[in-house]
Amino acid sequence: MKRRQFIQAAGLGVAGAAIAAPAIAQSNPEIKWRMPASWPKSLDTIYGGVEVMCKAVSDATDGKFQIQPFAAGEIVPGLAIVDAVQNGTVEIGHTASYYYFGKDPTFGFGTSVPFGPNARLNQGWWMQGGGQDVLNEFYKKYNIRGILAGNTGAQMGGWFRKEINTVDDLKGVKMRIGGWAGKIMQKLGAVPQQIAGGDIYPALEKGTIDAAEWIGPYDDEKLGFYKVAPHYYAPGWWEGGSMLFAFVNLDKWNALPKHYQAVLEQAGHLANTNMMAKYDALNPQALRRLIAGGTKLHVFSQPIMEASYKATLELHAETAAGNESFKKVNESMMAFTKNSYQWFRLAENSYDQFMMRAMSA
Amino acid sequence: MKRRQFIQAAGLGVAGAAIAAPAIAQSNPEIKWRMPASWPKSLDTIYGGVEVMCKAVSDATDGKFQIQPFAAGEIVPGLAIVDAVQNGTVEIGHTASYYYFGKDPTFGFGTSVPFGPNARLNQGWWMQGGGQDVLNEFYKKYNIRGILAGNTGAQMGGWFRKEINTVDDLKGVKMRIGGWAGKIMQKLGAVPQQIAGGDIYPALEKGTIDAAEWIGPYDDEKLGFYKVAPHYYAPGWWEGGSMLFAFVNLDKWNALPKHYQAVLEQAGHLANTNMMAKYDALNPQALRRLIAGGTKLHVFSQPIMEASYKATLELHAETAAGNESFKKVNESMMAFTKNSYQWFRLAENSYDQFMMRAMSA
Repeated sequence: MKRRQFIQAAGLGVAGAAIAAPAIAQSNPEIKWRMPASWPKSLDTIYGGVEVMCKAVSDATDGKFQIQPFAAGEIVPGLAIVDAVQNGTVEIGHTASYYYFGKDPTFGFGTSVPFGPNARLNQGWWMQGGGQDVLNEFYKKYNIRGILAGNTGAQMGGWFRKEINTVDDLKGVKMRIGGWAGKIMQKLGAVPQQIAGGDIYPALEKGTIDAAEWIGPYDDEKLGFYKVAPHYYAPGWWEGGSMLFAFVNLDKWNALPKHYQAVLEQAGHLANTNMMAKYDALNPQALRRLIAGGTKLHVFSQPIMEASYKATLELHAETAAGNESFKKVNESMMAFTKNSYQWFRLAENSYDQFMMRAMSA
Repeated sequence: MKRRQFIQAAGLGVAGAAIAAPAIAQSNPEIKWRMPASWPKSLDTIYGGVEVMCKAVSDATDGKFQIQPFAAGEIVPGLAIVDAVQNGTVEIGHTASYYYFGKDPTFGFGTSVPFGPNARLNQGWWMQGGGQDVLNEFYKKYNIRGILAGNTGAQMGGWFRKEINTVDDLKGVKMRIGGWAGKIMQKLGAVPQQIAGGDIYPALEKGTIDAAEWIGPYDDEKLGFYKVAPHYYAPGWWEGGSMLFAFVNLDKWNALPKHYQAVLEQAGHLANTNMMAKYDALNPQALRRLIAGGTKLHVFSQPIMEASYKATLELHAETAAGNESFKKVNESMMAFTKNSYQWFRLAENSYDQFMMRAMSA
C-alpha cells in the first residue's frame, strides 16, 4: 500500500470508529445500578428472587446492565426502600408495597390487601385488569414505577400459642401482625404488635405475645415458631397472593434506553414466576417437617373468616371515603377479583378439588 | 499535528475500529427469525401470546433480534411445528407439546397430561421441580429446546348435546377430543374423534358427533357450540393447566449469543404470565354471556372423575412400562404434583374457598 492510500484508509478507519463508538453506547450502554431489598439474605425465597432478577438483567444485556442486590440494612434500611428510590439514593429497590401504607393506604394494593385476589388473579389484575395502570399512576406521586418481581402465594395465618375457635377467642390476643392487617385484627379485638422478624421467637417464647404471622411453612420453619406456638392457622386472609415489586426511580427509568426498560420488565417476570415456583417446591417439604415437629394445623373457622371479611370491608369503605386513590384502585381491583373468581370457581376449582383429594391419597 | 503523529493517531483509530466493529456485531447482532404457530389468528388469546413474545424479544434487543409470527398454515401446517423446527425449516415455533404424542407420548408432558398439575404447579414443576431439565433432555432427541411461553389455565370439559351423569352415559358418545385424552375417553366407552376447530360446529349441529371439547369460555364462545350442545361441563381433566411452548431448533439456539438466549427465555415468561392474565380477564365475561345465551353449566360427577382418573393411571402405567422417557418424566412430574398439591390445599385452597363464596355474592 502506498503511503497516501494508507493515510486515506486510516482516515476512513478513524471516521468509522467515530461513528461506531456512539453506536455502541446507544445500543448497550454500560449501566450500574444498586438494588437494596427489604429482605435479609436468610429469606432465600424472596431475596433469592432479587438475585434472580439482577442476574436476568445482566444475562439479557451481555453484562452491560448490572444491578447489584443488597440485603436489608446493607445500604438502605429494609422498610425505607421506597424513600431511597424516590429520592434517588438508589435507582431501584425490591420491596412489598404495603410496608408504605403509612404514607398512603393505597400502597397496600399491589402486594396485597386483605381479601384481595389470589396470586394468579393478583397478577392477572396487574397485567390485564388495569392494575399496573392505576398503580403506576399512583406511584408517580412518589416518583417511582413498579415492576412485578415476585409472589409468595397465599400465606399462612400464623402461629398461636392457644387454639382460636371463635371470634371471641381473638379478644386480647397480642399478635405480631403487619400494619394494615393489624388494623383489622384490632377491629376484631386482638392487639396487633409490630416486631421485627428476629425478635418474634423470644417474644412468643416468653409469652410477651400470644401469636405471630410471618409468611408460610418454608420461611416460618427457619424461625422455629412451631416450638413455642404450635397452632398453625390457614389462611393468611390478609395475604392471598402477595406480589413483590422492584420500584424504579422514575427519572432513572425515563433515562434508560427503551430496551433496557423492556429487559427490566421481562427479568421481573422471570423472577416472579421463579419465586412462586420456589415456594411451591419448598413449602410442601417444610410443611411435612413442621407437622413431624409437632405443629397442629388448623383452618380459621367460618365465623372468624366472615368477621374478618366484614371488618375489612368496613375499613376499606372508611378509607375510600377520604382517599380518592384508594377508592379508585380498590374499585379496579375488586371488580377484577369478583369477576375472575366467578370463573376460577368453575374449571380451576373443580379440577383442584379433585386433584387435592387424589394427591392426598 | 505533524504528519507522522497524524498517521500514528489514525493507526490507533484503525486499531480501535478493528476492535469496535466486532464488538458491535458481538453485542447485538441483527437476527431475523420466523415463528410459525399452531394457532389461527382468531384465537387471539394464544396467538396473541405469540405476538407478545415476538414484540418482547424485539423490545429487549432494541429491534435487533426480530421474530416474525405466523398463524397456522401460513408457512407451516399448525400440527407440524415441531417437525419444521427440528429440521430447521424455521428457527422457532409456538405450539402445544401434546400435539406430537404420536412421535412419543412423552410429548404429552409439558403442555399437559390428564390429571397433571394445575397452571401454577405445572410451571412450578417446569421451573423448580426439574421439569425443564427432564423435558429438554428428552427434546434433544428432536434437536429442539422448549421455552415456556403461555398457559391457558384449567380448561373446560366440553359441550354435550345431552347431560352426562354417569360413566355409562359416556358409552358410545362420539366426542371431538384430542389424541391422548381421547385414548382415555375410549377406555370409558366414548368414541373419540379428531376434528379441526372449524369443522366442529357443523358436526355437532348435524349430530355427527355428540360432544366436543375445545378450550374455555372465551375461545369456545366464538365457535358457537352453546347453540347446538348446551351442556357445558367442568373441568377438562385432561388439561388442568396447559403450558404452551416456543420450541427452538437446538443448532440455532446454540448459535445465538448467550444474551439473546436469555432474552428469549425472559420474553417467554412475559408472554406466559400475560396469556394467563388475558384468560382470567376474558373468560369470566364470556362465561356470563354463554349463560345468558342458554348454556347449562355442569361439573362432571365424582364417579366420572374417578373413572377417568383410574383409566389415566392405567394408560400411564402401560405406557411407562415400555417407554423410559415417559416413565422418567411422569415420575418427576407426579412427585412434584403430589407434593405441591398437599401444600396447595392448605393456605391456597382455604383462601380460595372463602373468596369464591364471598365473590359470588
